[in-house]
Amino acid sequence: MSETLIDRVTLDDLARGAAFLGSGGGGDPYYGQLLAHAEIERRGAFRVIAADMLADDALVAPCGWVGAPTVSLEKLPNGAEAVAGLRRLEAIFGRPIDALMPIEIGGSNGLAPLLAASQLGVPVLDADGMGRAFPESQMAILNIHGLSSCPSVVTSSNGDLAVLETSDNLAHERMARGLSIALGGIAHMVEYPLSGAQAKRHAIAGSLSAAIAIGRAVREARDADADLFGALYAALRATELYPFAGALFDGKIVDLERETRDGFSIGRIVVEAFGREQQMTVTFQNENLLATDGETVRAMVPDLITVMDIETADSITTERLKYGQRVRVVAAAAPAVLRTAHALTFVGPHAFGMDMDYCPVEQLNGWTAP
Amino acid sequence: MSETLIDRVTLDDLARGAAFLGSGGGGDPYYGQLLAHAEIERRGAFRVIAADMLADDALVAPCGWVGAPTVSLEKLPNGAEAVAGLRRLEAIFGRPIDALMPIEIGGSNGLAPLLAASQLGVPVLDADGMGRAFPESQMAILNIHGLSSCPSVVTSSNGDLAVLETSDNLAHERMARGLSIALGGIAHMVEYPLSGAQAKRHAIAGSLSAAIAIGRAVREARDADADLFGALYAALRATELYPFAGALFDGKIVDLERETRDGFSIGRIVVEAFGREQQMTVTFQNENLLATDGETVRAMVPDLITVMDIETADSITTERLKYGQRVRVVAAAAPAVLRTAHALTFVGPHAFGMDMDYCPVEQLNGWTAP
Repeated sequence: MSETLIDRVTLDDLARGAAFLGSGGGGDPYYGQLLAHAEIERRGAFRVIAADMLADDALVAPCGWVGAPTVSLEKLPNGAEAVAGLRRLEAIFGRPIDALMPIEIGGSNGLAPLLAASQLGVPVLDADGMGRAFPESQMAILNIHGLSSCPSVVTSSNGDLAVLETSDNLAHERMARGLSIALGGIAHMVEYPLSGAQAKRHAIAGSLSAAIAIGRAVREARDADADLFGALYAALRATELYPFAGALFDGKIVDLERETRDGFSIGRIVVEAFGREQQMTVTFQNENLLATDGETVRAMVPDLITVMDIETADSITTERLKYGQRVRVVAAAAPAVLRTAHALTFVGPHAFGMDMDYCPVEQLNGWTAP
Repeated sequence: MSETLIDRVTLDDLARGAAFLGSGGGGDPYYGQLLAHAEIERRGAFRVIAADMLADDALVAPCGWVGAPTVSLEKLPNGAEAVAGLRRLEAIFGRPIDALMPIEIGGSNGLAPLLAASQLGVPVLDADGMGRAFPESQMAILNIHGLSSCPSVVTSSNGDLAVLETSDNLAHERMARGLSIALGGIAHMVEYPLSGAQAKRHAIAGSLSAAIAIGRAVREARDADADLFGALYAALRATELYPFAGALFDGKIVDLERETRDGFSIGRIVVEAFGREQQMTVTFQNENLLATDGETVRAMVPDLITVMDIETADSITTERLKYGQRVRVVAAAAPAVLRTAHALTFVGPHAFGMDMDYCPVEQLNGWTAP
């Protein structure tokens, strides 16, 4: 697409798709969806453009929320955080922002920039910085490709603001994380400011329209009373970003450990198969990282692992997991740019402290291209 | 004094006095002293001026280090942190800084601004923001008097920088603390930027020359082989800031608990009297907060409690406390501005989570004015 208008129905498709692509993270989109509906009511449909519509010297502001999604359930935004940070970025650059971009397409962060862009009167790019959601800022493809996270601007719902400058994107993540904790567990961040040329070259193009397509496929399958998961897998495969997708495990959540620690929501679930002894364990740090079936690894980062309601095919973000939920654990291949040897040093299992080498989800499960 | 030059001997007096006034905190001055000696060698004596020499519209930058003093023993500054923060403050205000001021006169933070001022070519005020050292930024008299901490600038030895803006000085402390942890446990901060008029009205005047006088008295007593502690108490009383001073307890440190937690150095020591069963406990959060003799409270914040080497009268900062040290626990009355009912809500025992009302050290010990 070159320019798309996001109306209420498309917004709900986007929310549904982003919730899946969040791989459990990025925050439950529900509250953001309500805010976005109200904004569409107020100012009309959101504008999304392809990055190639930008001038090379355009100023693009990737943005989203940083913190523990568990906190976002209780500490709601006031709606002014993003604009405060974006206006400061404009002051720093001495020029207006031309477009926003989700730093991650996953979860609530996949839609949050739409609202801010509408307030600023600029479009959002059909692209993002992660192709999914990741718990840490330096996991963005923009860092993997050597771009600077700074200057970045962190803002809180109390009007607190911090401008961060460092040449070390990992230090930047730590600073932002420390601030998010200090500011109550969650904060908004504008980071990795890009030129139009950089956005065209480095952002993960098409991820926003991919999220919409995924969400639409599930909606249409619901309306047609068709196979929801079949429609989901087909839609994922039809994007050029997520070429393999399928179910890993069905069962009931029989154990849940989750704590808010070091600015993250960290834990694991155990899913017990219906009527059998078999169990799958899914561990998470904001996002689901690893799914093991007994001793067998079935999927690992950066591939997507999403726990879904087995009846409704709704994606359940990690902060919404509950004992007793009847779920299907679904996986999808990560975008190819996240699977290179270089990228895996940033977003592979070792980057999360797991002592295992990356193995693609399609190999682990014997999936072949359809 | 109106203008004083700080040569190497005076600098050492200042370091000795500031170590005492730190009440255990502010960081051991030793490394700062070495840096300051080198700077005097390079550029000559440091200039200290009285605040009343400033124009009312002058720009004064209070500054110092924030973090856990335990970390400062191992993670040394690179010497450029302060200037990076001060230059940024100048850029924000669009004008040069006219003078620096220690945010706290205690410990290493009592001398750190001299070095930075020399690099900038400006004087340091004979004043500070705390009249001692306190663990948290909002405990400054500048906050007690309702001034804003912001804009403030936090810098690290890796060249990382953050500009903080908030109308809530307690949120500011949390943000700065979170950053100090993210930046390795310690960071430099320029905060509570003041006009000349504000510095004259709100800063604690004369504290830098008081520190020098205290340090000089101990040095002269050493040279004369006179009573070191008697000279110290007399010098404290001779300042108008610390009108009562005396010994609380002599003994050997027989127990020490200390951990670096939440960005602070937190713990307690038990001092056992020589040849008796009696014990004094001193608890600290960077600074010594409470001294109890059995069940009897002998001193509490904001009054100064300093653990000193009983032979040399060297002040032992909390990160330097060790099992087996033979010490005298000394106390001094805090400056009167810290003892008002309003000030005590910020720096009294309740502000540190202690369930007791403030009682002046001279009342607790039956000290009468000499």
